[in-house]
Amino acid sequence: MKHIDYLNHTIRLAMENVESHHGGPFAAIIADKNGQMVSYGQNKVTSFNDPTAHAEIQAIRKACEKLQSFQLSGCILYTSCEPCPMCLGAIYWARVEKVYYAADQKLAAAGGFDDQFIYEEINKEHKARQIPFHAIEVQDKNLPFEKWAVMDQKVEY
Amino acid sequence: MKHIDYLNHTIRLAMENVESHHGGPFAAIIADKNGQMVSYGQNKVTSFNDPTAHAEIQAIRKACEKLQSFQLSGCILYTSCEPCPMCLGAIYWARVEKVYYAADQKLAAAGGFDDQFIYEEINKEHKARQIPFHAIEVQDKNLPFEKWAVMDQKVEY
Repeated sequence: MKHIDYLNHTIRLAMENVESHHGGPFAAIIADKNGQMVSYGQNKVTSFNDPTAHAEIQAIRKACEKLQSFQLSGCILYTSCEPCPMCLGAIYWARVEKVYYAADQKLAAAGGFDDQFIYEEINKEHKARQIPFHAIEVQDKNLPFEKWAVMDQKVEY
Repeated sequence: MKHIDYLNHTIRLAMENVESHHGGPFAAIIADKNGQMVSYGQNKVTSFNDPTAHAEIQAIRKACEKLQSFQLSGCILYTSCEPCPMCLGAIYWARVEKVYYAADQKLAAAGGFDDQFIYEEINKEHKARQIPFHAIEVQDKNLPFEKWAVMDQKVEY
């Protein structure tokens, strides 16, 4: 399938998700390096009571489960809408190769989904954020990393 | 429990996670507005084959499941380490009230976990990113939002 065909398919999946009252108007597809579809995801935030159940995250989790891997090297992610910062982060951790999207942030914002706000918060001083992030001095804060450093047979990621 | 006590507990949970070979040296706790622990999460990326299974995301998912809600208003998130962009996004979507953390990004980077790289990628031009993001013109790109706009009985989030 061509890139545009996969994107049109994400649009259909997003519409179906809204019609079935399962969540927001978003869907994503992951295809492997041969262009075969591995998984798809639809936004399930409200029906699953899971604020992390965005379309891209659902697609990534399902693809990883199917491939029995925590990385999606060589895979392409197609999404009906430009990813939010959470999904962008997930895309990097999953190490997909490329992202194609249809609607951009502006269109999403006009539709009532303003991810731009979170993008702006990221670059603010920790304490100036709407959700403040406070560092507290904890004596043992490096112990987990020290333990990790000396562990044999650890699975790096 | 005091903030520092919860943070020390996240350190213990992170150590335990490494020792049991379940994943990376990270843990998080969510407490409700009365200071009671609602959930905890440990990094399960490698054992669950899920690149999104960071400690904070695990804790958020478990808290939402327990409270049967897709929002954690009034809750506090404690984490052994400053959140990565994916977890930061999840924190905003879950609408927790505040975040306290022990180790910062620099310590994490020294320990082999360089989230700073993803923070830098966010502010790059889409096509200059290590994982390129391409917009493709899709005629129907606004249809999911239009459908959402006219839906009755939708659950906003």
